[in-house]
Amino acid sequence: PESLPVTRTGTRQVPGSRQVFCPSNPDYAHAADRIVRRLAQRYADHPAVVLWHVHNEWGNHNALCYCDVSATAFRLWLRERYETLDGLNAAWGTDFWSQRYGDWQEIQPPRDTPAFVNPTQDLDYQRFSSDALLRRHRTESALIREHAPDTPLTTNLMGTLEKKIDGFAFAEQCDVVSVDHYLTAADPQAHIGLALNADLARGMASGAPWMLMEHSTSAVNWQPVNVAKKPGEMRRNSLAHIARGADSVMFFQWRQAKAGAEKWHSAMLPHNGTQSSTWREVTRLGRHLRALTDIRGSTVDAHIALVFDWHAWWALELDARPSSHLRYLDLVHSWYEALWSLGHTCDIVPPGSDLTAYRAVLAPSLYLVTDDDAENLHSYARGGGHLLVGAFSGVVDVNDHVRPGPQPGAFRDLLGLTVDEYLPVRPTDRIALADGSAAHTWAERLVLHSAAATLRFAPGAAGAPAAGEPAITHNPVAAGTAGYLATHPEPAVLRRTIEAFCRAAGARPAADVPVGVEAVRRRTSAGGSFLFLINHLDEAVTVPARGTDMISGLSYEGKCRLGAGDVVIVRE
Amino acid sequence: PESLPVTRTGTRQVPGSRQVFCPSNPDYAHAADRIVRRLAQRYADHPAVVLWHVHNEWGNHNALCYCDVSATAFRLWLRERYETLDGLNAAWGTDFWSQRYGDWQEIQPPRDTPAFVNPTQDLDYQRFSSDALLRRHRTESALIREHAPDTPLTTNLMGTLEKKIDGFAFAEQCDVVSVDHYLTAADPQAHIGLALNADLARGMASGAPWMLMEHSTSAVNWQPVNVAKKPGEMRRNSLAHIARGADSVMFFQWRQAKAGAEKWHSAMLPHNGTQSSTWREVTRLGRHLRALTDIRGSTVDAHIALVFDWHAWWALELDARPSSHLRYLDLVHSWYEALWSLGHTCDIVPPGSDLTAYRAVLAPSLYLVTDDDAENLHSYARGGGHLLVGAFSGVVDVNDHVRPGPQPGAFRDLLGLTVDEYLPVRPTDRIALADGSAAHTWAERLVLHSAAATLRFAPGAAGAPAAGEPAITHNPVAAGTAGYLATHPEPAVLRRTIEAFCRAAGARPAADVPVGVEAVRRRTSAGGSFLFLINHLDEAVTVPARGTDMISGLSYEGKCRLGAGDVVIVRE
Amino acid sequence: PESLPVTRTGTRQVPGSRQVFCPSNPDYAHAADRIVRRLAQRYADHPAVVLWHVHNEWGNHNALCYCDVSATAFRLWLRERYETLDGLNAAWGTDFWSQRYGDWQEIQPPRDTPAFVNPTQDLDYQRFSSDALLRRHRTESALIREHAPDTPLTTNLMGTLEKKIDGFAFAEQCDVVSVDHYLTAADPQAHIGLALNADLARGMASGAPWMLMEHSTSAVNWQPVNVAKKPGEMRRNSLAHIARGADSVMFFQWRQAKAGAEKWHSAMLPHNGTQSSTWREVTRLGRHLRALTDIRGSTVDAHIALVFDWHAWWALELDARPSSHLRYLDLVHSWYEALWSLGHTCDIVPPGSDLTAYRAVLAPSLYLVTDDDAENLHSYARGGGHLLVGAFSGVVDVNDHVRPGPQPGAFRDLLGLTVDEYLPVRPTDRIALADGSAAHTWAERLVLHSAAATLRFAPGAAGAPAAGEPAITHNPVAAGTAGYLATHPEPAVLRRTIEAFCRAAGARPAADVPVGVEAVRRRTSAGGSFLFLINHLDEAVTVPARGTDMISGLSYEGKCRLGAGDVVIVRE
Repeated sequence: PESLPVTRTGTRQVPGSRQVFCPSNPDYAHAADRIVRRLAQRYADHPAVVLWHVHNEWGNHNALCYCDVSATAFRLWLRERYETLDGLNAAWGTDFWSQRYGDWQEIQPPRDTPAFVNPTQDLDYQRFSSDALLRRHRTESALIREHAPDTPLTTNLMGTLEKKIDGFAFAEQCDVVSVDHYLTAADPQAHIGLALNADLARGMASGAPWMLMEHSTSAVNWQPVNVAKKPGEMRRNSLAHIARGADSVMFFQWRQAKAGAEKWHSAMLPHNGTQSSTWREVTRLGRHLRALTDIRGSTVDAHIALVFDWHAWWALELDARPSSHLRYLDLVHSWYEALWSLGHTCDIVPPGSDLTAYRAVLAPSLYLVTDDDAENLHSYARGGGHLLVGAFSGVVDVNDHVRPGPQPGAFRDLLGLTVDEYLPVRPTDRIALADGSAAHTWAERLVLHSAAATLRFAPGAAGAPAAGEPAITHNPVAAGTAGYLATHPEPAVLRRTIEAFCRAAGARPAADVPVGVEAVRRRTSAGGSFLFLINHLDEAVTVPARGTDMISGLSYEGKCRLGAGDVVIVRE
Repeated sequence: PESLPVTRTGTRQVPGSRQVFCPSNPDYAHAADRIVRRLAQRYADHPAVVLWHVHNEWGNHNALCYCDVSATAFRLWLRERYETLDGLNAAWGTDFWSQRYGDWQEIQPPRDTPAFVNPTQDLDYQRFSSDALLRRHRTESALIREHAPDTPLTTNLMGTLEKKIDGFAFAEQCDVVSVDHYLTAADPQAHIGLALNADLARGMASGAPWMLMEHSTSAVNWQPVNVAKKPGEMRRNSLAHIARGADSVMFFQWRQAKAGAEKWHSAMLPHNGTQSSTWREVTRLGRHLRALTDIRGSTVDAHIALVFDWHAWWALELDARPSSHLRYLDLVHSWYEALWSLGHTCDIVPPGSDLTAYRAVLAPSLYLVTDDDAENLHSYARGGGHLLVGAFSGVVDVNDHVRPGPQPGAFRDLLGLTVDEYLPVRPTDRIALADGSAAHTWAERLVLHSAAATLRFAPGAAGAPAAGEPAITHNPVAAGTAGYLATHPEPAVLRRTIEAFCRAAGARPAADVPVGVEAVRRRTSAGGSFLFLINHLDEAVTVPARGTDMISGLSYEGKCRLGAGDVVIVRE
Repeated sequence: PESLPVTRTGTRQVPGSRQVFCPSNPDYAHAADRIVRRLAQRYADHPAVVLWHVHNEWGNHNALCYCDVSATAFRLWLRERYETLDGLNAAWGTDFWSQRYGDWQEIQPPRDTPAFVNPTQDLDYQRFSSDALLRRHRTESALIREHAPDTPLTTNLMGTLEKKIDGFAFAEQCDVVSVDHYLTAADPQAHIGLALNADLARGMASGAPWMLMEHSTSAVNWQPVNVAKKPGEMRRNSLAHIARGADSVMFFQWRQAKAGAEKWHSAMLPHNGTQSSTWREVTRLGRHLRALTDIRGSTVDAHIALVFDWHAWWALELDARPSSHLRYLDLVHSWYEALWSLGHTCDIVPPGSDLTAYRAVLAPSLYLVTDDDAENLHSYARGGGHLLVGAFSGVVDVNDHVRPGPQPGAFRDLLGLTVDEYLPVRPTDRIALADGSAAHTWAERLVLHSAAATLRFAPGAAGAPAAGEPAITHNPVAAGTAGYLATHPEPAVLRRTIEAFCRAAGARPAADVPVGVEAVRRRTSAGGSFLFLINHLDEAVTVPARGTDMISGLSYEGKCRLGAGDVVIVRE
């Protein structure tokens, strides 16, 4: 029972479900290691084992445990990070609210507290919890590699847009990256979220091909309403993953369970067997996939990078921020949606990665940014890059301390402006912009230094900046440029802004297709290329294409008719 | 303190309220038995004791206790049900998610878990909990009967539409069935819920007269807003209960308490005493009831049965179903509302009861149905009955295992169709039907075998079936018929569907009255009959009636004028 | 760890936040006393110490602790209050639901219970909890006074509209009253809430000047969306506090923290330093305040009292009332808003205070009223006063027992009417009034005795009184009058009602200004007076003024032009 996880309010959870263990528990670790060792010994040389899958969905349900064992492990993690109590007290700013620690034993996980918990403590607990699972992953991986040093190894990193664990850190430990994806039934544009998930999977794989470990043939069972996939939708989903770098498309589950918690999750072979629409669609997909073998190993064409960071996410959503309506995924999603609608393919990368190859880099939200990462973005722009930064970025350092001097602290010089005051607005308020469009949630009162305004505020919401104040800016930086959005524009103006930015940066879509049609290109190292054309519209469209249809064998001499909901893959 | 109940997240509750005991606690049982024995001894021969009321509202607040004593009792209950661990492991499908039990001691109540708990475990816990209270009821009843073998005995089964305990199982243990009823203040049509409650009370009493143990003269105190009854409403409520088989109408509370948790619950004698509207209405009701003595013992005329089952309810609302918007009571209520509006009186019965006498049987929701109960419905139709089955029925067996082969598993042959896929839709989506009306929440893609479509889908919501696919079907079965609704139509089309179904089955209302007027007939074994006419409209209506008004003494020669909000009871 | 607070459901909270202590814990008390003693010894004679501030915001986060130590302290408090168990059983009405206590040890705090907890127990726990903190305040104050008998002492009573502690009881223990104030960002009329808070601060100070211990230069950080103050808003806020009796205006915080839970709370010196709008506004305010020195010590002119009572608040919002939509602050706020809009300045006072000097007294909500307080209001009216009482008042006694006989129990004779029945309506229902306006939430069916109706109900919502029944009444009482509102009218009709009432009582605003402009007058004991004119409108207005502008030095000969958002203070 000591290995069972404990909730923030102190409830010890019970078996009868899934992932019912504390990530830091040594007894669990011991028992799990024994199983891993036995499995590795037994199957290391088995010819059918071509890949090891370590655990499944680390931390999907038990990422945050608040038990006493976790508390002890947290203290050890803190000792390693800060070495001294003075270091910890400084990093956590414990002078505020008289929280100074005189003994490591006094430190607790951020359990239930009467008022806001110390924010750096909370942030560190998310880091510690991700690390505790990563440690399990490394241990189990090492045990497997001991016996099977030459077999590649992966772990299913879940739908990649999960706050629970730092995906980049786990991906580094895998020979090949694999992820889940499940559509959000409530979102009629859920295929955009799919593309985002896939591009992040590719980012976690540093551009290399990756595996789709799980998706669904139709409905899932864990959302409030589990909408089934429409005819053709599963095929579009599958091929969209491949377009964006997946070299495999697998499903949970093979045969639909008749009992247990996931019996209402769709499967390749559903309850009603082979006399079913689902089975017919699955076998049709299988036939089509066979025609795509040559694509394997090719990489995806992307001239744009979108910056993503789990630490920035964790920090932005801590308690007691200027606005709780500033949600990290909303920001990333809205920028990504603009890119998607414009037909741009982007890599989704951590802020410290090598950006030199990209024509344009977008950073929708970097509230927390380390000094090194900030310098990486600076040097990208100085080197001729085009950078676009979202509101409330560059604000705090690695410890969630506000950077000294005017905001946007880490990006002040880069953006050529300072922030006089952050001006969040009420969720129902709309902020008018000078071109007649609107923004929402957030605004800032800027003082421009070297930057110039490309869009200004109009008379608008209570608390928003005055009419004429800059809303979107542009700053020349050595050979490059750095733009800033001091608000969250509605989709149309965000799209126009990003369109102009990408055009100036010389980034172009893979093909000239209407909004609602995806065009993505994969290239082989030998110079071959494959153009994926995916029609999410309810009507047929004609799009440019030149080459051979890999499924139908048809030849396109410049254009191709793409049926409603259809997918065409052209060998160019 | 060991006898205090514990919540799902582990909070031990405290005294200072009501029903603060764990249903499985032996110390509580011991103490309660002692009181029961003493009371029984003392009052067994008291001439004023004509009926024993065992406990009150079993499980209204404490049905589900998660303490360690309950855990032990649950294990005993499971041993009785499954005999072996293999039996339990098979029934619970514990191979899924590695939940296999190797020792009875490992089994826990479905307390807090990181992800979904095992659904059969959850279902069995609801069964166990209902049984734990039933065991208390049987024990206390036996103690009373030991001393007073000839006095009838009852227990107040609460508002009958409570998920907490299996009403049919408790009713079986009573000499006379008694229930509560309180209007739902938020529902402007709460009198339809009252009729449903009363018809279910009669179903629990197998058609015999029953007792209304509690209702209110005016407002209650436990809803968010406790709307008072309008002038005349309490009288309509009281007489509606009698119309539907009640032989007594009692109130909580006699004199309005001046302190405690229920002081704002209305009473026969309110805080302001006899100089009050409430008191005047109560005494008027008393006078009218005196005129109705001859009705006592007569039974209610009903040619239609509506199938109701607590196990189907519990199973439908477990975690991780296709749609959490599929709520058992909504389904039952919407079908009942159609019957009520059409003027049909129905018995509400368990799926295993004798159905042969009914012209029509409606089963709005039987997601879980046992093999025996399914066979009972089959044989009803084969014998010439007319059966109408709601969507997502016949799906799982007694252990919540999906029935093998295409759905609707248990009713596939009976309905002459199979389900290709279940298609829940988002709560905001409307599903278009071919006659211009709409449905919501749920649809199914059907393949018809012997069945014919009586209504089809029109082009509609995302995820709904394609236009032209069958929505409502009809299947001839030997001498009878079996219809199916593969969606949840809006009220008007549901009413039309049920109207056509009842007409075809030859079931007729008690009288030809407009919508909003209730007409129910009670008959004596000697051949007499009483027609209740209850006008819920804000205007007077003229309705057919022949006989003597039992309250006014007026004689009706074919029609009767029924004032706005008035009630007339005609001795025919 | 024993000193850490425990939540209602039994979670022991942890350090890492603020106010993480149980108010009744003796170990905490001992440790806190030691610190207080040491501080008092050390600084008692320090020339810079002119005022002691004991603790800060007593009970803001930890007012209600449910630990075992609190349970023990609660029992002691109850013994003092009731002396015998019989006394307690009678006061709590424990005969209901068989809750009778036979031993003091059986009594628990109102922790988690299966159904409603005993309401008097719940009410007493709020009283006990406020008293437990008050005891700490008295103890710490005594320790300080021992060493510094001549230095005045205060405690920051928080935003005064906090349910957590009885503000009047704490204020009595202070040499000078001090409070917080923070605008509610979601309320576009938050400056009316500010005025209400300030008038209550003055009420707690019995009319004497008071201190604004904290407000903010701009946004706070603890609301869901923290809207910044608009240019000029902080100045208006600051001067509005002074207008209503503050003799000091202080801010939390001086320099904006760079770490910790309140780093996003605005400050006098913000993160971006002196090159900021905020700093410029703060220094400008400082210059203006210097010109207002002569106002210090003067008192505010108010001819109207509004009755406020924490015990009435606690009791009204206990479980299982006729309507949970009847919220104390909504009622007080709506009446206050009417007064504010009409330009009336009122004192906010406890029901037992000396009312003789007021021309009019308004009591929006006195569900619970003690016998003495009821008599105080009676004698005010008998002595020629004009009293207006809100719905559902006079209902229960000090123990939350319904007063015998028809309602409104304590005010029956005073108001010259009885209540036949309380008629709460659904939140979406509107109640029509005879003048074409509407009311909401609540109505009563009245029987008038000596009272006359001044407004009647029109045909309206389900459950509301019939058309023609009285909604607002007026009763002559000896030399005075007593009016009653049997419903909650919408703002316009509430304003008209209160306007007519005040006019009849001979109460007049400080100046004749349009709605949205505040006019408040302070007077010195020497006969001087200062008129504050605060324009909350977005346009300039001309208002009557005669005297010298204390900031600009301008002279007004009868009128003054007040810019949009501007404030003028006239030495008359």
